[in-house]
Amino acid sequence: MTESLSLKEISDHLEGKILRGNPDSVVRGVCAIQNAGPSDICYYGSAKYSVYLGTTQAMAVIVEKPVETSARCVLLVDNAYDGFRKVLYLFKPDISSGFDSVHPSAVIHPSSRTGEDVHIGPAVVIDRDCVVGNGCRIGSGSVLGPGVIIGDSSVIHPGVTLLAGTVVGSNVIIHSGTVTGSDGFGFVPDPGGKHRKIPQNGNVVIGNHVEIGANCTIDRAVTGSTSIGDYTKLDNLIQVAHNVRIGRGCFIAAQTGIAGSTVVGNGVVFGGQVGVGGHIVINDGAVIAAKSGVTKDVAPGVTVSGNPARPHMETLRLAAAVSRLPKVIELVKKLSAGRKAETGD
Amino acid sequence: MTESLSLKEISDHLEGKILRGNPDSVVRGVCAIQNAGPSDICYYGSAKYSVYLGTTQAMAVIVEKPVETSARCVLLVDNAYDGFRKVLYLFKPDISSGFDSVHPSAVIHPSSRTGEDVHIGPAVVIDRDCVVGNGCRIGSGSVLGPGVIIGDSSVIHPGVTLLAGTVVGSNVIIHSGTVTGSDGFGFVPDPGGKHRKIPQNGNVVIGNHVEIGANCTIDRAVTGSTSIGDYTKLDNLIQVAHNVRIGRGCFIAAQTGIAGSTVVGNGVVFGGQVGVGGHIVINDGAVIAAKSGVTKDVAPGVTVSGNPARPHMETLRLAAAVSRLPKVIELVKKLSAGRKAETGD
Amino acid sequence: MTESLSLKEISDHLEGKILRGNPDSVVRGVCAIQNAGPSDICYYGSAKYSVYLGTTQAMAVIVEKPVETSARCVLLVDNAYDGFRKVLYLFKPDISSGFDSVHPSAVIHPSSRTGEDVHIGPAVVIDRDCVVGNGCRIGSGSVLGPGVIIGDSSVIHPGVTLLAGTVVGSNVIIHSGTVTGSDGFGFVPDPGGKHRKIPQNGNVVIGNHVEIGANCTIDRAVTGSTSIGDYTKLDNLIQVAHNVRIGRGCFIAAQTGIAGSTVVGNGVVFGGQVGVGGHIVINDGAVIAAKSGVTKDVAPGVTVSGNPARPHMETLRLAAAVSRLPKVIELVKKLSAGRKAETGD
Repeated sequence: MTESLSLKEISDHLEGKILRGNPDSVVRGVCAIQNAGPSDICYYGSAKYSVYLGTTQAMAVIVEKPVETSARCVLLVDNAYDGFRKVLYLFKPDISSGFDSVHPSAVIHPSSRTGEDVHIGPAVVIDRDCVVGNGCRIGSGSVLGPGVIIGDSSVIHPGVTLLAGTVVGSNVIIHSGTVTGSDGFGFVPDPGGKHRKIPQNGNVVIGNHVEIGANCTIDRAVTGSTSIGDYTKLDNLIQVAHNVRIGRGCFIAAQTGIAGSTVVGNGVVFGGQVGVGGHIVINDGAVIAAKSGVTKDVAPGVTVSGNPARPHMETLRLAAAVSRLPKVIELVKKLSAGRKAETGD
Repeated sequence: MTESLSLKEISDHLEGKILRGNPDSVVRGVCAIQNAGPSDICYYGSAKYSVYLGTTQAMAVIVEKPVETSARCVLLVDNAYDGFRKVLYLFKPDISSGFDSVHPSAVIHPSSRTGEDVHIGPAVVIDRDCVVGNGCRIGSGSVLGPGVIIGDSSVIHPGVTLLAGTVVGSNVIIHSGTVTGSDGFGFVPDPGGKHRKIPQNGNVVIGNHVEIGANCTIDRAVTGSTSIGDYTKLDNLIQVAHNVRIGRGCFIAAQTGIAGSTVVGNGVVFGGQVGVGGHIVINDGAVIAAKSGVTKDVAPGVTVSGNPARPHMETLRLAAAVSRLPKVIELVKKLSAGRKAETGD
Repeated sequence: MTESLSLKEISDHLEGKILRGNPDSVVRGVCAIQNAGPSDICYYGSAKYSVYLGTTQAMAVIVEKPVETSARCVLLVDNAYDGFRKVLYLFKPDISSGFDSVHPSAVIHPSSRTGEDVHIGPAVVIDRDCVVGNGCRIGSGSVLGPGVIIGDSSVIHPGVTLLAGTVVGSNVIIHSGTVTGSDGFGFVPDPGGKHRKIPQNGNVVIGNHVEIGANCTIDRAVTGSTSIGDYTKLDNLIQVAHNVRIGRGCFIAAQTGIAGSTVVGNGVVFGGQVGVGGHIVINDGAVIAAKSGVTKDVAPGVTVSGNPARPHMETLRLAAAVSRLPKVIELVKKLSAGRKAETGD
């Protein structure tokens, strides 16, 4: 962790331009604009936060266009949010494990291979026929079932369970408590109630640069693979059922659930607590608002909301109509009463 | 894992009849009808997939009545889905652990007993006074608290936590990350905010042939037992609160939550992300549509939906009415304007 | 675990008064009024259960005002529910671990310190620079990342993952499967889909007397801390995103999710499966009904419900109006037809 950097050092790292302030000013931390202190750097990227520009206690603010601000230093970059990201990396605390490369308490089956520069924490279990790529970190207490394959430079945080046959790409991050390769939910219902299990013969395949949050569940396929495409990012507590296929570069917010065999295209964005039915196609670039219940296919680029989900404009139109409903009912009563008085109906 | 079987061998195993094709044809895999390749067998059980019958690349299709199809072989059975299930078992890959019966890294309290032919993986912890039945498998890193009892032939996948006093029947499957016996959510609210914990003295009892998905939470009872009946199947990320009693042969889809002391009958089906309030009775054979919020008792055999949940037909009727509301409001405006013009009101 | 106590012993412990029954009556268990048997004590605290007063098989009932009841003994206290709580403690079974103080299979980094009278179960991993207070219990298989600090008398149940820098107060209970300190969900979206990760430099801070249920996820902050105030109680499967701040004495029911940077005041109550958007303020004493979707700030003491959440009275008013909508539409049709007949419009 960097303890401090001069404004000039930060500016150079960001390939930015100091619009105001002494290049030798010493920055000691990074913070949100509303909470920053007098030795912090922050960023301003959205008009939503303009109220803080004049009051921030920050020493320096990263901007993407000139602004008026109470901060003594202003640093201009192309993309303020990305500049903030880079500065966070500069000040990232060292939270690496104190345990050495491969901890002696880890149990690794002799048939499994691990690459160079791997870190394997205490109490990790790696079952037979696994391959762990170069530079991977496997956190304490994680379990790799038989035949798990992980590419290079991936991070499996503590307490993750990757079950038999899971394939994980390179530069992937999987957070604690997540399970991949649990059986999909499939049964032949029995009229007498003695439902019979459909064996789940497939696996889970996770692309490169994917990040999966904590306590997610990603079920193995019945046959073939449940798959998550490159650069897709999952938040926490997400359910991905068997044979779901998710494309590249999607964002899926927490507590969303996607039922079996549904296909999600590229660049799809899900709010939190969304539910998607089975055997549905959500096309590229669609946006699914939080808490939506998706019951049919979603066309490319369309934003849907509500339960059952509809085009968002329609949801808003109906919600506005419902808001007016009590008054409309009053009016209808009046009209009806007026008519009765006239016609004796 | 079977590498290949002749059509005749499969037909014999399924007690089926070859309607078309060479009995010596060699089947090398199982797949869904739309994805099957030229050495695969698939099944056709629902008219929803009739579009694929004429185009499937599968070598063979399992059917329950004669069909026209592009597949070279047709195999007739009583229940096509169940035939598919049996063939999946034939081709199930071997994903068993490479570690021997009881791994030396497992910590088993001397007061606990394990049956014959048990598999206990690395880093498993079995606390005092447990009983693990014959033929059970306890996956890597799982924890059994004090006094846990498991019947015969049950599978506890890696990373499961069965807390003190949990009773698990025979032929049960519990998937990774699931917790049973966590404390129920009970407090005496304190006006000053210092809420006092209600001790949770009970346990969790799980019947025979139950399957519980990954990362579920099943709380122990305040007194007595939280219970799940024989043959009931839970998907992933499901919350079962203290003193809930669930009957036999139910299906509960992912991310559903059932609040305290609610009673669920036999053969009840829950869609995903359902929420059920506390102290509610859901009677035998009821169906709760996905995302419903159940706030009162549900009669036997009734399908409910929506939040608050109502009989499904009523939900549909109201939804249809709301869809028409913007036009209705236009019409009411017109009527009102017409009346004003006439009466000067 | 107490096997039996006389009514007088219980009355003395509760500082109550025996209204009826023999003080020497032997009580052998605690149970709910509707399930209690002839040697059990139960409580009656809510008119909702008055139906059971005349039929209960219980030997004794704890009440806060005199009642007519079939129970042979009646014990008067100030707060019946709190009396029940105290009696549950008297009869609490001993479910303590059979393993000794610090199990030899636990891996504790030499730089970490543990207090007096700690219990550290088998397969626990404690990484570098941790501090575990006096009287703490760390359950089997739990993982403490680098720099985790836990106050005195806290209980970390088996299978918990407290990641780097997590600070836990005193008298805290964290249930199995919960993860604190996983990375928040933050990315600079990339138009080409190669989204860039925002490093999460902050941590999680949990106050004193907090209880967190099973399989929850509490993300570390981008900068600063995600925090949970003293005496706040979380149920199971709850998502708390980065930089969320939750006040004192809140109750949060299962499967609720709170998005990033939202601020929750003191004494706020959440039903189950609530979703709260990011950057929202929920003020002191607000109540959020189950399954609500909170999209804007909530004023102090207000109850909201629905999605999007509105004041509960308004939700009820709109729901009532919608229920009447099909009949209203019939009426409008009739009025319209009548008018057409008259005017020829």
